[in-house]
Amino acid sequence: MSHQLEPWAHREIGWSSAEAAVSESLLALSNGYLGIRGTLDEGEPAALPGTYLNGFHEIRPIPYTDRGYGDPESDQVLVGVADGTRLRLVVNGDPLDVRTGEVLEHQRVLCLRDGMLIRTLHWRTPSGAELRVRSSRMVSLAHREIAAIHYELEAVGRPVRVTVHSELDARLRSPASADPRAGGALPANTMTPLIRVPRRDGAVLVHQTRGSHLLVAAGMAHHVVSPPSAAPMIEVRSSIARWSLQTNLQPGQPVRLVKMLAYNWAPDASAGTLATLTGTCLEHALAIGFEQLAELQRSACDRVWEDADIELDGDPELQHALRYSIFQLHQNTACAAGYAIPAKGLTGNGYCGHTFWDTEIFLLPALAYCNPAHVRDALLWRASTLPAARERARCLGLRGAAFPWRTITGQECSGYLPAGTAAFHINADIAHAVIRYLQATGDRDFEREAGAALLVETARLWASLGFHDPDRGGRFSIDGVTGPDEYSPLVDNNLYTNLMAQTNLRAAAEVVQRLGAEPLGVESGELEAWLKAAEMMIIPYDHERAIHLQDEDFARHQRFDFTPTASEHGPLMLQAPYFQLYRKQVIKQPDMVLAMVLHPDEFTTEQKRRNFAYYEALTVRDSSLAAGSNAVIAAQLGDIQLAYDYLSEAALLDHADSQHNTADGLHLAALAGGWTATIAGLAGVRECNHMLAFAPRLPKPLQRIEFALTYRGCRLRVKLTPTEARYQLHAGDDLKIAHWGRSIRLNGPEPVVVTIPPAAPVPTVDQPAGRAPVRRVQVPTGLTAPPPSPPGVPGVC
Amino acid sequence: MSHQLEPWAHREIGWSSAEAAVSESLLALSNGYLGIRGTLDEGEPAALPGTYLNGFHEIRPIPYTDRGYGDPESDQVLVGVADGTRLRLVVNGDPLDVRTGEVLEHQRVLCLRDGMLIRTLHWRTPSGAELRVRSSRMVSLAHREIAAIHYELEAVGRPVRVTVHSELDARLRSPASADPRAGGALPANTMTPLIRVPRRDGAVLVHQTRGSHLLVAAGMAHHVVSPPSAAPMIEVRSSIARWSLQTNLQPGQPVRLVKMLAYNWAPDASAGTLATLTGTCLEHALAIGFEQLAELQRSACDRVWEDADIELDGDPELQHALRYSIFQLHQNTACAAGYAIPAKGLTGNGYCGHTFWDTEIFLLPALAYCNPAHVRDALLWRASTLPAARERARCLGLRGAAFPWRTITGQECSGYLPAGTAAFHINADIAHAVIRYLQATGDRDFEREAGAALLVETARLWASLGFHDPDRGGRFSIDGVTGPDEYSPLVDNNLYTNLMAQTNLRAAAEVVQRLGAEPLGVESGELEAWLKAAEMMIIPYDHERAIHLQDEDFARHQRFDFTPTASEHGPLMLQAPYFQLYRKQVIKQPDMVLAMVLHPDEFTTEQKRRNFAYYEALTVRDSSLAAGSNAVIAAQLGDIQLAYDYLSEAALLDHADSQHNTADGLHLAALAGGWTATIAGLAGVRECNHMLAFAPRLPKPLQRIEFALTYRGCRLRVKLTPTEARYQLHAGDDLKIAHWGRSIRLNGPEPVVVTIPPAAPVPTVDQPAGRAPVRRVQVPTGLTAPPPSPPGVPGVC
Repeated sequence: MSHQLEPWAHREIGWSSAEAAVSESLLALSNGYLGIRGTLDEGEPAALPGTYLNGFHEIRPIPYTDRGYGDPESDQVLVGVADGTRLRLVVNGDPLDVRTGEVLEHQRVLCLRDGMLIRTLHWRTPSGAELRVRSSRMVSLAHREIAAIHYELEAVGRPVRVTVHSELDARLRSPASADPRAGGALPANTMTPLIRVPRRDGAVLVHQTRGSHLLVAAGMAHHVVSPPSAAPMIEVRSSIARWSLQTNLQPGQPVRLVKMLAYNWAPDASAGTLATLTGTCLEHALAIGFEQLAELQRSACDRVWEDADIELDGDPELQHALRYSIFQLHQNTACAAGYAIPAKGLTGNGYCGHTFWDTEIFLLPALAYCNPAHVRDALLWRASTLPAARERARCLGLRGAAFPWRTITGQECSGYLPAGTAAFHINADIAHAVIRYLQATGDRDFEREAGAALLVETARLWASLGFHDPDRGGRFSIDGVTGPDEYSPLVDNNLYTNLMAQTNLRAAAEVVQRLGAEPLGVESGELEAWLKAAEMMIIPYDHERAIHLQDEDFARHQRFDFTPTASEHGPLMLQAPYFQLYRKQVIKQPDMVLAMVLHPDEFTTEQKRRNFAYYEALTVRDSSLAAGSNAVIAAQLGDIQLAYDYLSEAALLDHADSQHNTADGLHLAALAGGWTATIAGLAGVRECNHMLAFAPRLPKPLQRIEFALTYRGCRLRVKLTPTEARYQLHAGDDLKIAHWGRSIRLNGPEPVVVTIPPAAPVPTVDQPAGRAPVRRVQVPTGLTAPPPSPPGVPGVC
Repeated sequence: MSHQLEPWAHREIGWSSAEAAVSESLLALSNGYLGIRGTLDEGEPAALPGTYLNGFHEIRPIPYTDRGYGDPESDQVLVGVADGTRLRLVVNGDPLDVRTGEVLEHQRVLCLRDGMLIRTLHWRTPSGAELRVRSSRMVSLAHREIAAIHYELEAVGRPVRVTVHSELDARLRSPASADPRAGGALPANTMTPLIRVPRRDGAVLVHQTRGSHLLVAAGMAHHVVSPPSAAPMIEVRSSIARWSLQTNLQPGQPVRLVKMLAYNWAPDASAGTLATLTGTCLEHALAIGFEQLAELQRSACDRVWEDADIELDGDPELQHALRYSIFQLHQNTACAAGYAIPAKGLTGNGYCGHTFWDTEIFLLPALAYCNPAHVRDALLWRASTLPAARERARCLGLRGAAFPWRTITGQECSGYLPAGTAAFHINADIAHAVIRYLQATGDRDFEREAGAALLVETARLWASLGFHDPDRGGRFSIDGVTGPDEYSPLVDNNLYTNLMAQTNLRAAAEVVQRLGAEPLGVESGELEAWLKAAEMMIIPYDHERAIHLQDEDFARHQRFDFTPTASEHGPLMLQAPYFQLYRKQVIKQPDMVLAMVLHPDEFTTEQKRRNFAYYEALTVRDSSLAAGSNAVIAAQLGDIQLAYDYLSEAALLDHADSQHNTADGLHLAALAGGWTATIAGLAGVRECNHMLAFAPRLPKPLQRIEFALTYRGCRLRVKLTPTEARYQLHAGDDLKIAHWGRSIRLNGPEPVVVTIPPAAPVPTVDQPAGRAPVRRVQVPTGLTAPPPSPPGVPGVC
């Protein structure tokens, strides 16, 4: 199996069972409400097949060896719903299977312009008959309940007899995995069948989860486009429906059929309502038809590219990777309104389908400049979970809201205190996303409706979590928490946490000052307490080493001995006991560096340089979240080659499966890290005094970077070359920006072109032995052109 | 139900189902190899019945939410073997059950002089017939595989027809509990029946555990003493055997029968061998007969009392409690050679039957002065687990041996890193017990055979666990470990741990210097490294507060707010999340105080006073281990009333069920704490320059304390009154001791009488709100005399 990373497509050629699971993730389709993994149409061979609905989950008890007070009782697990992708073919009596007969051609192409997965297969049966199959699969970005498959069969050489069995299969497949990051295994009887509604052209099945009592309806309907054939058969059992068609194929006379799928779930609707609703969705989809759905899909993609595309000259592989990232980010958030954005979107059930802090720190800031509406949706979902977060804070003996470390619905699902409950920074992370969104949009409605409450309740949490230490002149201390570096849990005054909390407290005070205490339910004295806590916040600094401290005691510990380990052996946590990782200087993922990325003005350049050199030498990047932040700080410090290396690591993380768990789904935050590494890194974009500031510099091979940003109603188009930057307004008519410290006012559509100052040499930094990023020097060239599309077929890249 | 705590007996009068589980623990019999809980003879009502064999366990997987590298896979759980205590009676057709009919008298007496549980019951059946039952149960201290029951039935008033069903029941009863301290629940099919061997007078059953594949044989045999009666029936199924006898009872003509039980388990014997062996044990027991077994039992107890009794005038309840403690300590360790001593002995399956550091720190030092042979056995068992401990150290990336936090066979069974693996002090605790034993006995054979290896391998561990910090002048730092205070886990330089490690390192160096490096396999440079680590060991001290620090960062944290809690609500860990306990100044059990108790010469009196005042105010004593150490330090500091309060708390802990889990078994370490509080506390005994030093002082109500100590082959008898101490050698002819700093030489049996200096007033210390120990002022008097024993019956107190 090989992959071609084309500017607008991910092309997979051939088939390999060993790579099947990763392929299923890379070729997954999603609209943020409904997600379907990139399985083969005939269903087998498959690795981790799955069709997921956002929020649809089962619960299961969390096992504890020593359960403590306040430890959550049950976990939530994203659970697969009925699989409607399967179209099993029997050709002259031989079931189509790429492991038998002879595969003469097999390509699957994820088309980034069209939002569609196209497959072409030329197969010779064991008995020598030949057949071409072409399928086009889409998960609609226009109608979130709907997916559609266009299927075309054609005999080659001589006629063949074909039977199509098209299925809707609700029997759960939930393999257990030893990897703690994988989706949780569920018992086979998780889904109870409730209703089955046969249709002339398909069926609707309604099931209920056994533990969480959630209801889901799944439906399929078929339309045979050509030629008219014998009447299809339909067979409907409680957990599987099968629509079958027998036909004789003549060479040159393809059979085309369309399969529409519809899904609905709701915690409060009846089974009957859901079944009816789903039938209606199917009727609607059939009425629109596949071609028009494909046009709507293309329009939705067009808007994404208009808002968010990054063009790149000089590194075609990276060009692909960035487009692929942007596509996955957008398709996994497009229709997620009302739900969380899981760490892996709906491309797999890794991490049990949970959402973490990644959303607010890595995804949303990227989306805020190209698709702020999705950021708003995501933050409104967070706000909708405030009741659970308030309850959690009370349970922990705290005030305000304590948001969960990992969750599907807002309940804490982490049973491991050091890397769960103690990671309180998630609360400031949420506040950070609110602040960034408000800065980028000025959306005062959102602020009133949800933003202010999020800021106020998280500020309350910090005020109750820390204390003014009388022995240190009343400095505000936050003890026993875990920062981003999960290899250093339960520390005192984690700098990242404290800096984020400080911003959180001040933002809350600011919003209260502006909107008034009474409407926000803020009591007398609270605002003053927040400001005082912020002012007195401990920001640990080591004067002898002249570095900031990741936490108060960090630099006191023994340095981890990296020599026996190597990144090829996978993450350190699989090679050394947590006990050893916890007590030594070794960092899982940027912590201090992330603090500097998110608070660039709190550190001098010299401090950044010294901090980066110190902490980079201890950071093993055992997290997909690492590379993007490193790229930004490296670029800020002038090490543009290192920034480029890290940009490539982030953007190609899933293509390279470098975390060894792309099989369970894509890493959305890492993909967002590619965007961040390019925009905040290479282009040096940051927000400073309510203004976008640029400090662009291109690494050697890149000849051009071009992208658009949406900021407070203006659309700014930026074109960067090795020597010049060109800024132009495409919407809005007045925007002040800064370029390398120089203020520029854009009035109307006239572009401003300015030079980029030449780079000065910078000292290099070291990584732990075996952990340096791959130096990006040789850029692959000579891409294969995509094969010409046959005329009249929808969904061509 | 009421209890009478008599000088030589624990007498339970009446019956209460609510108190049944605690009663079963308090009236448990054990010899350290075989333990039988204090159930009623007729088997029901029962709470947590159990017959246990030391080391006989099942394994089960440890559940993890986030399993890390090196986390142990499976847990070991003490599993009950066949219950042979049951003698069900049917009286004129009515099954004997204390919940039906009418109980005219019911007493159960644990006789401390005889090592026997005597029960007398006078019962009226629902139809009005009356019967007296008297049973005497013993677990033989002379033959560890054997238990015996003498059973006597007598009709009262008119004749009755009685059927006796005597059972041996291997069907597992393993109730699940929500208390994490309870014994682990096991599935009903844990025991697979292998062999059943019917006997004319009973049966032998052999079973195997399903997971750990351990084999156990249990047998019963009966002897009807009088009168000769109809032939008994025997019925033997795979997991239950029943011996039945029908007889007519005439008033004044009691029926007496003896039931012998025998148990054997071995990991490597065949089922057939075990069955044969057990049959032989039964024959042997029958040949000895109950009366002679009772005599042997009495002799064994006599030796215990001769070596270990503490006599007390002025507080009869405490007199009882101390004797009860001594009895339980000795019966639970007497025949444990080759096995661990579980935290609850064999009196229940709490803590899954695991052994912890309690053994080495609380039990063995107490036993070292009265029964050093048992200490030797226990340390030899530890030494036998060295291979597993070496393997564990390697797995953790360390050298030497890392002993398990909790275990049955030597494998680590803790799945909770902060309170398991990280509690490395257990290794120094073991070394401490070795040192204490060697000091008390001078046993050089043991030192060569096992002691030296234990000291060397633990010293190696410390050398690899800590590091010389170049930034602190090469001071030796041990980071990220958990000390005795489990509410402050994963700390840097826990003072207790460091002080214990220091002693461990020096003791290992001393033994190597004496016995030579080569025979002990010590490499060049190791000894020097140990001495250097010991010399440079960080002992954290806070100059501003003028206190030692429990760990480097302890005093920096916020003080826990104790106001909303109260000890009646049970331990803090059931009222507050660990997250909050971990990050604040709150102490579960003495940590600094224990360090001062074990290293009295490392602290000045003023330091002890300041440390005790500081840490006592933060200590909630959510552990049964707390009170004994507190008593010692209070006594050392002259607060003899507080020492008395804590002594009472320790010695009466199980009688009062103050940890709310006596139901699962007795707290052997707390019981040992009663001894320690008296001997090391009130009598002020400690070892100083290879000499016993005394600093006795009696609290107000006590008029006399008298006890014996065995030290380096001498037996010293000590009698203390409020004003005088009398020291006398009963064995040995030359011993130097110290009394309140004054050196005394005992030559021959002539006693030396010296005065006790008057007490000076001392400043009081505070405990957290609601956590002060109960002030011991009103001492109960007016004990009921035990009822006269019927003549000719064995096992009378």
